[in-house]
Amino acid sequence: MTDRLGTLYLVPAPLDFHCESQVSLAWVLPLHTMQVAAGLSHWVCENAKSARALLKRIDAHHPLSTALQAQNMLELPREVHKKGDHATAWDAKALLQAAMQGHDIGLLSEAGMPAVADPGASLVRAAHDLGMPVVPLVGPCALVLALAASGLNGQSFAFVGYVAQDTAQRSAQLMALEKLALQSGQTQIVIETPYRNAAIMSALLATLKDNTRLAVCSGLTLPQMHIQSLRVSDWKRLNPNLDKHIPVVFAFGP
Amino acid sequence: MTDRLGTLYLVPAPLDFHCESQVSLAWVLPLHTMQVAAGLSHWVCENAKSARALLKRIDAHHPLSTALQAQNMLELPREVHKKGDHATAWDAKALLQAAMQGHDIGLLSEAGMPAVADPGASLVRAAHDLGMPVVPLVGPCALVLALAASGLNGQSFAFVGYVAQDTAQRSAQLMALEKLALQSGQTQIVIETPYRNAAIMSALLATLKDNTRLAVCSGLTLPQMHIQSLRVSDWKRLNPNLDKHIPVVFAFGP
Repeated sequence: MTDRLGTLYLVPAPLDFHCESQVSLAWVLPLHTMQVAAGLSHWVCENAKSARALLKRIDAHHPLSTALQAQNMLELPREVHKKGDHATAWDAKALLQAAMQGHDIGLLSEAGMPAVADPGASLVRAAHDLGMPVVPLVGPCALVLALAASGLNGQSFAFVGYVAQDTAQRSAQLMALEKLALQSGQTQIVIETPYRNAAIMSALLATLKDNTRLAVCSGLTLPQMHIQSLRVSDWKRLNPNLDKHIPVVFAFGP
Repeated sequence: MTDRLGTLYLVPAPLDFHCESQVSLAWVLPLHTMQVAAGLSHWVCENAKSARALLKRIDAHHPLSTALQAQNMLELPREVHKKGDHATAWDAKALLQAAMQGHDIGLLSEAGMPAVADPGASLVRAAHDLGMPVVPLVGPCALVLALAASGLNGQSFAFVGYVAQDTAQRSAQLMALEKLALQSGQTQIVIETPYRNAAIMSALLATLKDNTRLAVCSGLTLPQMHIQSLRVSDWKRLNPNLDKHIPVVFAFGP
């Protein structure tokens, strides 16, 4: 036991989770991020198996200080994955026990920045409430890469998360978001699970006005990355066919 | 002349602009980002002097393929800095001439991701309209680091930009944003120029409800980084005194 609390590091992951091809970590993670990750032995993650797979990749760049088999892995509860941190009552502090004993802890998502467009915020909040230092590390964030590459307003924007699955609800939601975007200039960013890429693209083209600009950013940072930003009327002429295995970020606005 | 259009690379910069201490680029930029930047010879930037200073730092990690003196630097118009891309009519295509001749171009902000919380979106939009490939590179983005470290909802959030300077207007704006955050769960993120850090902190504490959570993230990625996330009632007891030379991101919500 020690009086010193551990630090909670927020460790970003590459964006190739569940994708056919992997990127080299040197493309997407600064050396310092890999060094910090390689020095940790306690983790809270979405999925222990994919966390171990990432540590194995980090080990090839920077040797882990603790063997893979000896790493301590705790998973965020399943409920939090499904419903998000803020719709679930759970004891996040229980996952920070090791930090209370002085161990540094890494929070890890399956892709991108933990606690951004992903669960984990409750754990970060619990760390603050315990007085633990929280240190975010630099790495890829699909939303930000998409926004920067969209040509849409990056000085006012909102990330909305997943859109409604019900067709009528989805149309109403997209229409309301477009109205907000056109009135206020605030870019709206949405995501979907990849197998619904074609469905949301159809819904966007059926709902948005011809003059609205829509950016479709797929496979960000990957070899098959494809980024296109067009007016809806131009998208309609293209009749795009989105791969159902690749993550896409959609952004729209005036 | 060539038929091939150049690519527009979005090159992130470290977050230490105008700060006393510099970070090592290996802390915040992946090797690939530095390699791409080191291979470019045409730039569009906020300020040519600071762009050259960054290239000099990159050169120390990865030798530039074109000498610093021979780099082609164009600046975004002053109006765009002041008012933002969307409130200014300007000919962004004129800055992409070199790309029409086949040269790759880098877009560079003074800190962080270009075209996110910074000007540049019009240039990206013009690139799309010309059919140029747009490739965002990985690097630090203060907003995302702050959001991840805030413990606030990262599955729905809005970046609002700079708050109003007029006292009454600012109070009204913050009150409206808090109402939105509490009703919808959407985290609100705002920034200010560093010399107004104390003023906006006072305004936040005077305006927000005691139970609202406020995260104050200063000097992100820097040695003097300080991140704290507390309820407003707890902030009031702390009576914090923010450095007027260091960039701060503020985020609040339920």
